[in-house]
Amino acid sequence: MKIAVLGTGMVGRAIAGRLSTLGHDVVIGTRDAEQTLARTEPDWLGNVPFAQWQQDHQAVRLAAFADAGAHGEIIVNATQGALSLSALEATGAANLSGKVLLDVALPLDLSQGMPPTLTVANTDSLAEQIQRTYPEARVVKSLNTMLADIMVDPARLPGRHNVFVAGEDAAAKETVTGLLREFGWPAEDTVDLGGIRAARAAEMYGAMTFALSAAFNSFDFNIAIVRA
Amino acid sequence: MKIAVLGTGMVGRAIAGRLSTLGHDVVIGTRDAEQTLARTEPDWLGNVPFAQWQQDHQAVRLAAFADAGAHGEIIVNATQGALSLSALEATGAANLSGKVLLDVALPLDLSQGMPPTLTVANTDSLAEQIQRTYPEARVVKSLNTMLADIMVDPARLPGRHNVFVAGEDAAAKETVTGLLREFGWPAEDTVDLGGIRAARAAEMYGAMTFALSAAFNSFDFNIAIVRA
Repeated sequence: MKIAVLGTGMVGRAIAGRLSTLGHDVVIGTRDAEQTLARTEPDWLGNVPFAQWQQDHQAVRLAAFADAGAHGEIIVNATQGALSLSALEATGAANLSGKVLLDVALPLDLSQGMPPTLTVANTDSLAEQIQRTYPEARVVKSLNTMLADIMVDPARLPGRHNVFVAGEDAAAKETVTGLLREFGWPAEDTVDLGGIRAARAAEMYGAMTFALSAAFNSFDFNIAIVRA
Repeated sequence: MKIAVLGTGMVGRAIAGRLSTLGHDVVIGTRDAEQTLARTEPDWLGNVPFAQWQQDHQAVRLAAFADAGAHGEIIVNATQGALSLSALEATGAANLSGKVLLDVALPLDLSQGMPPTLTVANTDSLAEQIQRTYPEARVVKSLNTMLADIMVDPARLPGRHNVFVAGEDAAAKETVTGLLREFGWPAEDTVDLGGIRAARAAEMYGAMTFALSAAFNSFDFNIAIVRA
C-alpha cells in the first residue's frame, strides 16, 4: 500500500523502514525536507542524521508533509505529540479525509525535563484532539505504549505481550490490526480498547512507560495482560 | 502487627480481611461507625452491608478514623480517592506521623459516569498530595493498579504478574514489600518505581484499568512486565 509516515524521528524511521521492508510504498513526511536532509548531527536522543539513515533505506522517500499526505492511502502520525496538530495542519485536511490515520504519538511535555508530563491527559487526549480537528479522518490510536523497535518487531521480546487499538471506525481498526499483524503482532494479542476516548488510557499509560524505564534503565519492555 | 485500614468499601474489606487472616490486629476506620453499621442495603457496587461482612470477619474491629489511626502502626488508605484527604484529616496528623502510610486509593471522578476520569493526574497525584499534606507520614503508593481480590491474592491469576511501589522512604517501601509478600507477591514481582512522584504512573494507569475492564467486561486481570 501507499503509506505516509509523518515524522523523521526514531519512531517514524522504525515504522517507515519496516513498512518499506514489508513491500509498502512509503513516503516520510517532514516540515522542510531540505532542512531535514541538511542535518549532520545526531538528534538529542542520539539518532543519526536522517540523510545517513536514508542511505540504508533508499526505497523510503522524504517529502514535505502535504506531499507525503497526498501519497498515503494510510497516514501514520509519528511526529512528536506536542507538534502533531501542527504537522497535520501542514499535511492538510484534504489529504486526511476518508483515510485511516494511525496515531502512534505520545503528547510529551519535556519542557521540565525527565520524566515528562503529558500536554493533554485525563479529560482529553491527543487522538481525540486529532479526531475532533479532522472529523473526516478515521483515527486509530495504537502502538504508542512501547519502544519503536518493539512496535515493529514484537518478537524482540520473549513470549506474548500486548498492543492496543482505539478508535471510532471499526474498519479502520481492522486495517490497523492488519498492519500490526504484518509487523508480527498476532491478532489475539491486539486488544481493542473501544472508541477514540480510550486513547486516553493508552496515552496516560505513558507515565508508566517512563517510570518503568527509569526503574529498568531501559525502554526494552512491554506489558502482557494476564487474565483469570 | 497493629494495622489500621481506612475505608469500609470493597478494597478496605479485602485488605482488612486478608491481613486479619494472616494474624494481624486490624481495625477498619470509617467516618461514623454507627452509621456504617446501620446500613442495610448493598452499596452501588453490589457489596453487602458492612455489618453483614463483619459477621464473617469478627476479628476485624470497626472504629472512627481517629481511633483506627491511633491503633495502627501501619495505616492503609483504602478510602475513595476523592475523599482520601478528608478521611486522613479525620484520622489526624499525629496518628500518621512516622508511620508507614500505604496508599492504595485511586482518585476517581465518577461524577460524569463511566469510564471515570481522575480528580488529579499528570502534574500531581493523590499520593503526592497526601505526602505533601502529611510530611511526617511515610507514604508508599501500591496495589491501586488492580482489583481488590487480586491485590490480596495474586495467585488468583495464572503465572507471574506485577505490583508496583513508589515512595520516598526506602524502609517504608521495604515494609510494604513485606506485606505484599504476605499477600502472596514474590519480591521479584514487586517493581520499585522510585519516589512518590512515580505514583502518578500508577494512578494514571487507572485509565487503562477501566478501558481494559470495558473491553473484557471484567476487572479480573493484571499486567505482567515482559523484558528483553
